[in-house]
This record gives sequence, C-alpha cells and structure tokens, in this order.
Amino acid sequence: MRNWLLPEHIADILPATARQVETAKAAMLELFRVSGYELVLPPLVEYADALVSDDDTTLDLKTYKLDDHLSGRQLGLRADITPQVARIDAHLLSSRTGVTRLCYAGSVVHARPGGLMSSREPLQVGAELYGYAGIEADVEIIGLMLDALQQVGVQQVRLDVGHIGIFRGLAAAAGLAADVRQELFSALQAKDVATAAELVAGVAEPYRSAFLALPELYGPASVLEKARNRLPSLPEIELALMQLSAIAAAVGDRVQVSFDLAELRGDAYHTGLMFAAYAPGWSEALARGGRYDNVGRRFGRARPATGFSLDLRDLVRILPQRDSAQGIKLAARLLPQAAARVAELRAAGERVIIDYLGESADALNCDRELQFVAGEWQLVPFK
Amino acid sequence: MRNWLLPEHIADILPATARQVETAKAAMLELFRVSGYELVLPPLVEYADALVSDDDTTLDLKTYKLDDHLSGRQLGLRADITPQVARIDAHLLSSRTGVTRLCYAGSVVHARPGGLMSSREPLQVGAELYGYAGIEADVEIIGLMLDALQQVGVQQVRLDVGHIGIFRGLAAAAGLAADVRQELFSALQAKDVATAAELVAGVAEPYRSAFLALPELYGPASVLEKARNRLPSLPEIELALMQLSAIAAAVGDRVQVSFDLAELRGDAYHTGLMFAAYAPGWSEALARGGRYDNVGRRFGRARPATGFSLDLRDLVRILPQRDSAQGIKLAARLLPQAAARVAELRAAGERVIIDYLGESADALNCDRELQFVAGEWQLVPFK
Repeated sequence: MRNWLLPEHIADILPATARQVETAKAAMLELFRVSGYELVLPPLVEYADALVSDDDTTLDLKTYKLDDHLSGRQLGLRADITPQVARIDAHLLSSRTGVTRLCYAGSVVHARPGGLMSSREPLQVGAELYGYAGIEADVEIIGLMLDALQQVGVQQVRLDVGHIGIFRGLAAAAGLAADVRQELFSALQAKDVATAAELVAGVAEPYRSAFLALPELYGPASVLEKARNRLPSLPEIELALMQLSAIAAAVGDRVQVSFDLAELRGDAYHTGLMFAAYAPGWSEALARGGRYDNVGRRFGRARPATGFSLDLRDLVRILPQRDSAQGIKLAARLLPQAAARVAELRAAGERVIIDYLGESADALNCDRELQFVAGEWQLVPFK
Repeated sequence: MRNWLLPEHIADILPATARQVETAKAAMLELFRVSGYELVLPPLVEYADALVSDDDTTLDLKTYKLDDHLSGRQLGLRADITPQVARIDAHLLSSRTGVTRLCYAGSVVHARPGGLMSSREPLQVGAELYGYAGIEADVEIIGLMLDALQQVGVQQVRLDVGHIGIFRGLAAAAGLAADVRQELFSALQAKDVATAAELVAGVAEPYRSAFLALPELYGPASVLEKARNRLPSLPEIELALMQLSAIAAAVGDRVQVSFDLAELRGDAYHTGLMFAAYAPGWSEALARGGRYDNVGRRFGRARPATGFSLDLRDLVRILPQRDSAQGIKLAARLLPQAAARVAELRAAGERVIIDYLGESADALNCDRELQFVAGEWQLVPFK
C-alpha cells in the first residue's frame, strides 16, 4: 500500500517549482537560440555502446542497461547527453565542415546517485561548440554559461578555471609511467601534497618542483604570473597559461575568476580548459564545462569541441521563489455568456479559472473574479 | 563501428524539428497555464508498482523494469504519465478537496512500439481535471484539447466521441457473464457483427437487439436521437446519451463531431466519455482522452477525473515546416567592439552568430551581416 512513495534520490517536481523550471528552461533555450545554438533532442534510450565509451567506467556504472526486444542488443538509459550530441555532430551533421553550435535540455537518469544530496534524475541543460579550437570558442561558451545563470536570476557567480594541459605537459616531459601518472593525478586532485611528494621523489628537475608547485598555484589572475615563473617553459604549458590569461581578460571584469592549476576534476573526456561556476552558499558547482576535443572520435569524427552543462533541477533550488496568487475566478454558470471575454483575458496572459464548486479565492489561488455588473463584464478584486 | 545508429522506433529530433517541438510545447503549456492548469513534472523512473496497476497488462508490457540498487525494489521507466499525475493528485495534493487541474509534458518510453510507425519514445503532453464529475469538466477538457491543437496550427480537426457507459449499462442489465462480456466487447470493437450475434443469441430482449444495434449507431449528432429510440431506457444509458448531447451542443459549431456508440477503444482506465481528435489525411488520432474516475483509487483516493493527452513528437509531423534563414553574421575579430550592439540585437530576439572561420551566409544560415560602415554599426543584407 505504499505505492505512492518514490525511491530515494527521485522526486516529483510540484507546481510552484515546475513552472519555475519550465520558465528557466525556456529562458535558457531562447538565449541559446539568439546566440546561434541549434536545439537537438536526442532520445532517452539508445544502444548502450553509443552512450558509454569503453574507457569511462564512471559513466558506465551510472547508466541503466535495458534489453532491446526488437534487436536483442543492449540499450542504455542515458546518464549524460554530451556523448549523444557528439554522435549527432559526428554523424547526422557530418556534412557541415564549419562551426556547429548545438544545445539541448533533457532529463538523464543515474543508476547510482552522484552524492548524498544528488538527484538520480538531473535535468541536464547545455550548449556545445564544435569545429573551432581557438580560445575564443571557450570564451564564447563561458560567456553563454554566465548569461544563462544571470538570465534565470543567479547572483554573484564565481568562476573557477583550470587546465588539464599543464599536468599533461609536465607528465609527458617528465616521462611518468601510466600508473604513477594516475596516482599523482589523484593525489594532486585531493591536494594530498605528502603523497604527491613521494610519487615524484625520483622525478628529474625542474619537473619534480613543478608538480609540487601545482597545489599552491591557485587564486586570482596573479597566479598565472607566478605559474610562468615556477613552471618550466613547455609548449603545452605556455599554451595553457596563454589560454587561462585570455579567460581572465575576457570575463575578469564580469565575475570573480579563480584559477587552480591543480584542480583536475571535470569529466573523463576533458582535454584542455575546464571551468565551473559557483554561487555563494552552495558548495557544489552550478554549471561546469570545458574542452573535450576528442569526444566525437569513436563516432568517426574527432574535432575540436567545447561546451558546458548544468542541472536545472538542482539550480532552481537556489532561485528566488515567486509565489503569486494572480488569477481570475469565473463561476461556471456564467461561462456561456463570458466565453469571449475569457478568451480575451487568457490571450492577454491572465489565468482564468472556471469554478464548478463555489470554491474560495484562496483554494483557487485567485485575486479577482469576473462578474457581470451594471451591464458589463468587470474584474472585481477579492478583499 | 556502427555505434552511431539508433535502435528501431527511436530517433533524434534534429534542429529544424526540435525548435518546432519546443515552440509547440511552450505554446501548449502557456495555454494550460492561462486555463488554470498547474504544471507537474513527475520523474522518468519510480517504483514499478506505482506506474502499473495489476490489471493493466498492456501498460505492464510496455514498461521497462530496472533494479533499484539502493532499495532492491523494482523500478519502472514510465510508459505513461497519467498514473503519475493520479498519484500526485491522490497523495501530494490530497489536502485539496476541490477541483485540481494538472498538466504535464514529458517523454515516456515503450519497451515495445505501439505500431509499425510508432515511436518508442512519445513526448506525452496532457492535462487533467480532478474532483468534478459534471459533463462541464469534460467539455472544458475537450475545449482545451481543441485549443491546444489549434494553437500549434492543426487545421480541420474532427472529433470522435464514444461512451463506455452504454455498453456497460446494457451488459449489467442483460446480466452478461464476465467472459461473454469481454468477448462481446472485443467483437463490437472490431465491428464483427456475426460474432456479436452469436454471443448474444441467448440474451433476453430488448438487450439482444440493443447490443446488435450498437455497430450501426455512428455518425453525426442525429445518431443520438436514433439511439434513444433503439436502446432501452436504462439510467446509465440515459446519462451517457445526455452527456454525448452536451458535447454536441458545446463543440458542434466548432468542429465536426462524429459519435460512435460501438467505439470502445480508449485506455483500460476509461470509465465514461471517450474522445479522440483526428486531422484529414492521418489515420491515427492526434490526441485522445476521456473520463477515468477511478484512476486514483490504488493511491487511496478515487475521485472524478477527466483529461486528454497527445504525442507531440507524432504531432509535429503534420505541422507546416518553417525553414527561415534569419540571422546576423558577425566576424569574430569585430566582437570586442560590437559586444554591446550584439547584446541589444539578441535581446530583441535576433540570432547573432559569431563567425570564426569566414564561413558563408548559407553555412551559417544568415541573411544579414553586422558591419561597421561609415562610422556606425549596420546590418548589411546578403545578396
């Protein structure tokens, strides 16, 4: 008899919030449209091997598998939309040789929740730019992400920026073995300097010192200058620092930007710049993104790609609640005569509610009533 | 290497259509809002026993089952949203004793496609009215369904209307055994008069003749008069005919209405009036609905309910395609100086596309270019 209860980490979105979610989604999709991003709606289920690449075990564990009764093959219930958009760019839109801008908004399902407070059904909204490797594309995407958050009323956004190229450049130059590289990656990620020091004990200078400097290289744009002094001059590091400076120049006057050169989080597919937006009082990122130039390779078309995404279901929790009792009640018996007036009011955006049971203004969430008074239809306010 | 192919009956919605789907959905949700329907967004997955009732094997077969790693219980991937909305009315909004109007828009997944041409992932949009049993509620819902179709540009809609009460009234009065009742139901449904005649051979008059008259009782409102003459005067039949006449009176001047008293299709949960909207040249209904007064019972609250739903993914196939190349190209090198003008244009709803690669107007789908000419920013049309 408990079949109205929902599973853990699964929730209905009820009226007050649902309208807010739809309004925020519509505002973001309109922003994407005027910015030249074309909407795609990939399916909730498709072949599992298209949804999950062999080397992404985290995503694989998150992805529910289903039997396709028609083909006998395994389907997946998508846990991320980014691989689907990469498939579309690589396959369906492959005749386009220039820049392709795509956006999406849809639910994904996680077989296991990402955290204690995480929903198993994020509403993923995002935008991606394919076909241009220049930093201007990342600047465009970061600008779009900030616009999207601003559009729905998020205040005082802070931007955290990292770049996988710095660690990767050092690791290649230092000739780290794959297993050491992976352990060091995790240690730096956790800011576990003691373990990192052990792991690089045998590494040649200047790489050893450079690795150990990374956890200290965080803060405002001035850390980029510090990084230039403390890190060896490798092409990949030069490029990364130049790109990070470009971000500082482009959005530094708009939001507070923090750099963190040991921050290597991000999705498994990131290949360059990585960024995340935060708001005061919320420890989790509101939106994140970065460059993932190889995402289309397994669909036969590896080309430059940068993008961002956010969970709108999560985001609405921090938005101001609007609770308006604006609406017009009409007694059902008056409907035949009032039909034309009701149509006009609704076309003008007014909620007009037909009352069959003689309910109160509160129950109907109305502030006025449509009445025929002194020979004409009038909107009479409730006291 | 075929991992970009999609399973049968599963498809991406690509840009031209995707924007159309979102626009149509937004128009419908706005219509629902001004009509007093509150939006709910139930989850894609929840406990299977909440999604499927024991007696609905059709829905059960359509519903994918998943393991809940957290509870060990079985989850379902929803194949219909109506039971979820009934759960919300019965449980989450149970403090409301009056009329509750709810609407929704979301994808559902069918483990097996409904037909040769059917998608396995309909985009279900619908509205439901709980708490009022009067025919005015059905008239409101039918009006809303017709408005929704009209709003998105469907022309020349035809409305088919039936009523389960007529067959049910006859079957009860004739004292049909459950198995005969079920066989007769199927035979009438298939307009298989020979089988129906065999099944009712031993049934007393006037019920025998009445059952056999049903397949002939279809057509315009005049069949309701004919039905009054040919069917026995049972309370349930009287009520059904009165309700059908009310529909004819309410929407007969707006759309062509056909009645069919042997048309018993509809979902397993229908309990009274049933209706469907058709458009010329399309054999499948565009939208359908009806009364299902018991839908909330298994959630502990059986109350009157009427509603409709449609598959927006299916519906957009019949909508006129708009293919507009309206957009403004801006060379990326001009962006720093043009930023304010770009923001203005976008705020006014114009698509402004930053061009990094020197692409053609066609490739960017633009009809104008933003240029700095004679000391000011100008929109220069492409030839």
